[in-house]
Amino acid sequence: MTTSNANRSHVDRQASIPVADLQRFISGVLAAVGMPAEDAATVGGIMAQADARGADAHGVFRLPAYVKRIRAGGINLHPDMRIVEERAATALLDGDNAMGHLVMKRAADLAIEKARHSGIGWVGTRHSNHAGPAGLYARMPLAHGMIGIYMAVGSANHMPPWGGIDMLLSTNPIAIAVPAASRPPIVLDMATTTAAYGKVKALAQRGESMPEGWMVGRDGKPLRDPKRSDEGFLLPIGGPKGYGLALMFGVLAGTLNGAAFGRDVVDFNKDFKSVTNTGQAVAAIDVSAFMPLARFEDCIDDIWAQMKSSAPLPGAQEIRLPGEQSAMTYDERIAHGVPLHPELIATLDELARSVGAAPLP
Amino acid sequence: MTTSNANRSHVDRQASIPVADLQRFISGVLAAVGMPAEDAATVGGIMAQADARGADAHGVFRLPAYVKRIRAGGINLHPDMRIVEERAATALLDGDNAMGHLVMKRAADLAIEKARHSGIGWVGTRHSNHAGPAGLYARMPLAHGMIGIYMAVGSANHMPPWGGIDMLLSTNPIAIAVPAASRPPIVLDMATTTAAYGKVKALAQRGESMPEGWMVGRDGKPLRDPKRSDEGFLLPIGGPKGYGLALMFGVLAGTLNGAAFGRDVVDFNKDFKSVTNTGQAVAAIDVSAFMPLARFEDCIDDIWAQMKSSAPLPGAQEIRLPGEQSAMTYDERIAHGVPLHPELIATLDELARSVGAAPLP
Repeated sequence: MTTSNANRSHVDRQASIPVADLQRFISGVLAAVGMPAEDAATVGGIMAQADARGADAHGVFRLPAYVKRIRAGGINLHPDMRIVEERAATALLDGDNAMGHLVMKRAADLAIEKARHSGIGWVGTRHSNHAGPAGLYARMPLAHGMIGIYMAVGSANHMPPWGGIDMLLSTNPIAIAVPAASRPPIVLDMATTTAAYGKVKALAQRGESMPEGWMVGRDGKPLRDPKRSDEGFLLPIGGPKGYGLALMFGVLAGTLNGAAFGRDVVDFNKDFKSVTNTGQAVAAIDVSAFMPLARFEDCIDDIWAQMKSSAPLPGAQEIRLPGEQSAMTYDERIAHGVPLHPELIATLDELARSVGAAPLP
Repeated sequence: MTTSNANRSHVDRQASIPVADLQRFISGVLAAVGMPAEDAATVGGIMAQADARGADAHGVFRLPAYVKRIRAGGINLHPDMRIVEERAATALLDGDNAMGHLVMKRAADLAIEKARHSGIGWVGTRHSNHAGPAGLYARMPLAHGMIGIYMAVGSANHMPPWGGIDMLLSTNPIAIAVPAASRPPIVLDMATTTAAYGKVKALAQRGESMPEGWMVGRDGKPLRDPKRSDEGFLLPIGGPKGYGLALMFGVLAGTLNGAAFGRDVVDFNKDFKSVTNTGQAVAAIDVSAFMPLARFEDCIDDIWAQMKSSAPLPGAQEIRLPGEQSAMTYDERIAHGVPLHPELIATLDELARSVGAAPLP
């Protein structure tokens, strides 16, 4: 079957892959490079969820880079994750350089368990790795009637302190998720820069130019050509405010956990071998520690209705709630599969061949 | 003495007021309008700290409006603050419409106590009121070797959802404070809008125009004249991202606590009588639940050094850490007093006279 698929031309390939097939494919590739089956299933599930939710730069798209890192010895496939500090409502989890998805799943589960008893649980990680979209981990507490919060130190520095030019900060993201009753949960998932670096790379691939405000050069002048992104850096949202947010989320997700921050951050796009010592933080807040869950969820439905009810700004698009687009994408992709670009399919075919795993169907 | 001071011209008045004198003055005015002495001392202390730290729009400048609200019956001077929900690491505090400073002081103390036992403490408030600068409450855990986080629902809506024109959101601020060893703590204290509304009013007073990006009109066009601020609204940092942050901080500080959010927010600049049901949230994280405090503080010193070490962007000002300006202002004002504008001094003289309190020295 591998051979017959590999021989098919791109035109023949199915453009949209069912989410379950995508998960199987990812898990199969990871298992083929030595990841224990159970872990490969977990990571495959989380990565396929990233694709299902529309976080295209954080799902199967990352698989080749993850495999490259695993083969270079940059990921520990047999980690001994340990809770190195613990209180009733907090813990520090050392990921022992495991795949970030495994570390974060464990951290989120622990935060949820602590929130159930203490009202809130806050778990920090160190010796973790890139874990995909922030929103996925902020969403994990939702099924338990809880609010989720997630912060991370990004896996490469693309931003200087405000007023400087040395790359000391990443796009350090935050995600916050709250459950609703009849509406999708509200899920904010954002980098603290105007644009995430992945968006710059996407424009470069398409040969398009960047809007002003995304990047500036080391001369302080706007940089519009995404192919020249190495000559400049990303701009924080709100100038010094976004710089401050990136700095603080970095301290909470990195420094507090003994994880890398500032000059210690390893650029995971350039160095596939060094231990990144990535840090993240995830918190779960049990809604019922504040008010009955059903009442809170009704309030969130009401917030949906209020925001939607606003008269529109002339020339603006529809008013959206954070997470609304992702919820629509999710429904669409669960029903019809994840559309993959022919070039990505070709890359994934080649990857499967090179590790001896089953290709995409 | 009241008379002799009142008869002096502005030119004669001392321009800079020692912080202790400012505290005594504020406490005296609040006591004169019926606030119990101990509470008046607490609020005066916090408000004078706001001035000392350079938050000029949140200190004694607010006293006339607070007094107006107290006299209109919009503040409960004999509140029965109660913890209405409680778990090991969380609590919901009902402020019974007390002065916000008193509610937040109690909430921060409770969060610190919970963090000592559980690693983190998160306390939400409802039936609170405007409490001054976010940074003051995020700072409170610092003296206990803890990190502080504060969020609030702003006390008037000045922002629509992204793409709309109905004022459903406030400048909902966040503050995060972390302790350093030999450097000042890093303290981020920011509104989620490009500019706080107070800055717009300050430009209007000075007859200056606003930079583009602060406000737009209901027609979606830039609004530069601060005197026409009623015709438009504040813009969030990073467009939809700042809208998302304001929304989420509002949910965490307001909705989760049963406090006002969205259409329920009372504009405290226009309505001095209605119960505002203001909501806030304060969290304390015990650093020693993650690593030894001294090691963490050394790391924060190192972050100071790293950021300061960056080569400068051509044309940019000095690289600053969040809270650095405030720390310099604090040292200056503790040594030489708080400079007050002659017009503000005249207003405060008139206020003291009207309530029968001792004037500024």
